[in-house]
Amino acid sequence: MKKNKKLIAGIDLGGTNVYMLIIDTDGKIYAERHFPTEAEKGPEAVILNMVSNLNDLLKKSKILKKDLWRIGIGSPGPLDSKKGIILGAVNLPGWKFIKLKQRFEELTGIKTGVDNDANCAIYGEKWLGAGKNAKNIVGLTLGTGIGGGIIIDGKLYRGTNYNAGEIGHMSIVPDGIQCNCGSKGCFEKYASATAIANFAKEKIKQGRRSLITEIVKGDINKITSKVVYEGLLNNDKLAKEVWDDFIKYLSVGVGNILNVFNPEVVVIAGGVINAGEKLFVPLKNEVKKRAFDIVYSVAKILPAKLGERAGAIGAAGLVLFEGDFYGL
Amino acid sequence: MKKNKKLIAGIDLGGTNVYMLIIDTDGKIYAERHFPTEAEKGPEAVILNMVSNLNDLLKKSKILKKDLWRIGIGSPGPLDSKKGIILGAVNLPGWKFIKLKQRFEELTGIKTGVDNDANCAIYGEKWLGAGKNAKNIVGLTLGTGIGGGIIIDGKLYRGTNYNAGEIGHMSIVPDGIQCNCGSKGCFEKYASATAIANFAKEKIKQGRRSLITEIVKGDINKITSKVVYEGLLNNDKLAKEVWDDFIKYLSVGVGNILNVFNPEVVVIAGGVINAGEKLFVPLKNEVKKRAFDIVYSVAKILPAKLGERAGAIGAAGLVLFEGDFYGL
Repeated sequence: MKKNKKLIAGIDLGGTNVYMLIIDTDGKIYAERHFPTEAEKGPEAVILNMVSNLNDLLKKSKILKKDLWRIGIGSPGPLDSKKGIILGAVNLPGWKFIKLKQRFEELTGIKTGVDNDANCAIYGEKWLGAGKNAKNIVGLTLGTGIGGGIIIDGKLYRGTNYNAGEIGHMSIVPDGIQCNCGSKGCFEKYASATAIANFAKEKIKQGRRSLITEIVKGDINKITSKVVYEGLLNNDKLAKEVWDDFIKYLSVGVGNILNVFNPEVVVIAGGVINAGEKLFVPLKNEVKKRAFDIVYSVAKILPAKLGERAGAIGAAGLVLFEGDFYGL
Repeated sequence: MKKNKKLIAGIDLGGTNVYMLIIDTDGKIYAERHFPTEAEKGPEAVILNMVSNLNDLLKKSKILKKDLWRIGIGSPGPLDSKKGIILGAVNLPGWKFIKLKQRFEELTGIKTGVDNDANCAIYGEKWLGAGKNAKNIVGLTLGTGIGGGIIIDGKLYRGTNYNAGEIGHMSIVPDGIQCNCGSKGCFEKYASATAIANFAKEKIKQGRRSLITEIVKGDINKITSKVVYEGLLNNDKLAKEVWDDFIKYLSVGVGNILNVFNPEVVVIAGGVINAGEKLFVPLKNEVKKRAFDIVYSVAKILPAKLGERAGAIGAAGLVLFEGDFYGL
């Protein structure tokens, strides 16, 4: 490590796994690891395990703890990012009003900032990934739901009480599918990885025949977006219908983002981007029909580049570039 | 007029009327007038008429032309606000690639900035109206269509090539009504003043009986949102259905704005806000169901305060506070 370069720990706390890395202010990664969250053990055990893994990672990489400048953590929400308090998290049982920032600072003695995982992922892509050098970027992570993040003029846009960017809960079907947020027809009910799987499950339950049923050996609960994609690659008719619907709904959401934000880059993340051209070619065609030409002409619709590292990189980037917000 | 106070002309160029005022940097209005655009005479005649009215307004108000610091103009778009060129405007025949900024500067000798009318209206409300002192504001003008404007961190958000804020063209019904923008199911097709009138016309054409038919003496083409509102006040069943649908769709759009922007204020403008509580009470009830509680709790949903002055005030405000953008 060169002198004068500060080291930051970036940690992405997920419901299943924790991703952790040590990165410097130039974005060079010195060490990384991931390990199971073991969320069932409860918040304090998860936090202690994260700290112990951090200490171990530093030790194994021969980095002195005193050389670690800041820690950034991405977490599922809702959370109070200003204070670093997790208010609740669907996939982390018992995480109600957990003072993650304070606890981490007590245990490590290192200044810590916490932000929501979708914000961290898009910020990572802005710093070192698909949104590098762009000023106005909107990010979408297609997973269980759809996580959203908004970068305006190079900075994370947080909104009045730091809850902006819930693009997955933009309603695109007024009387549509009931969402657990309380609204109806939310974008994530139509264009997340879960939505792809659910659309296929429904059709098969209605008695439609499909290669998908064979792939999952008759166990409908095993249908995932990946299985639907496998069906698509094998010219399965039902898989094609589901995929086309997914593309249509995704294009509505992305078209809306273009008309409202006139962004330079829309970054799409999540396992489904592995579909590559099968996703991005039809998506761009459909978005072109929905967005204004003048807006479409300057918008790049790109796959995320950083994969599972994005959240940890972005968490580190946020405490580096926007430390003021977290009181660092 | 106190010394050291700069005077600005704010002009709102509409398809039917031009609204013009002289305002100082504290927002005090010294003179104002409005006059017919006479758009049918073509761009040059309209511009000459605007300049002649400006000169006359100055003269009648005993303001010396040399004391006029800048001119701000709000215009229908699409336009290139950076260069002050109108690229085309549906309600202004012949306005194709009209260098409005340049022509005004030639004719008056005063530095001029041009921006889109929806941006000017929301900026006016931010400076002196319903959004005063708020930092993050989204504005909607419900008229022929729905004009949108976004204020982030106290500044107009313009986007990559200055075309952000087309909230009226956020699709909320994927296979919905064909919009002249090329997309389907645009917000403005469901929640503009025109949409209210169209929904009523459709139902009446289908043979439904309504007080509305009597109000317009059988001439369905005379149905406007105001007529529907009159029906609503008189407990007409059809008018109530149309109004409820309008509220539902408006709440989808406003709910989306809340979840995406987490704004401090949403300002709603247009003649329809004269409905007062009949609009805002049910709207807030519906938005509450659609937006996250944490986001709804901080968002004020307010009627515009400046009426027909908003665009002219905002045009002046933009050249005052954001003059750099227009090269002033």
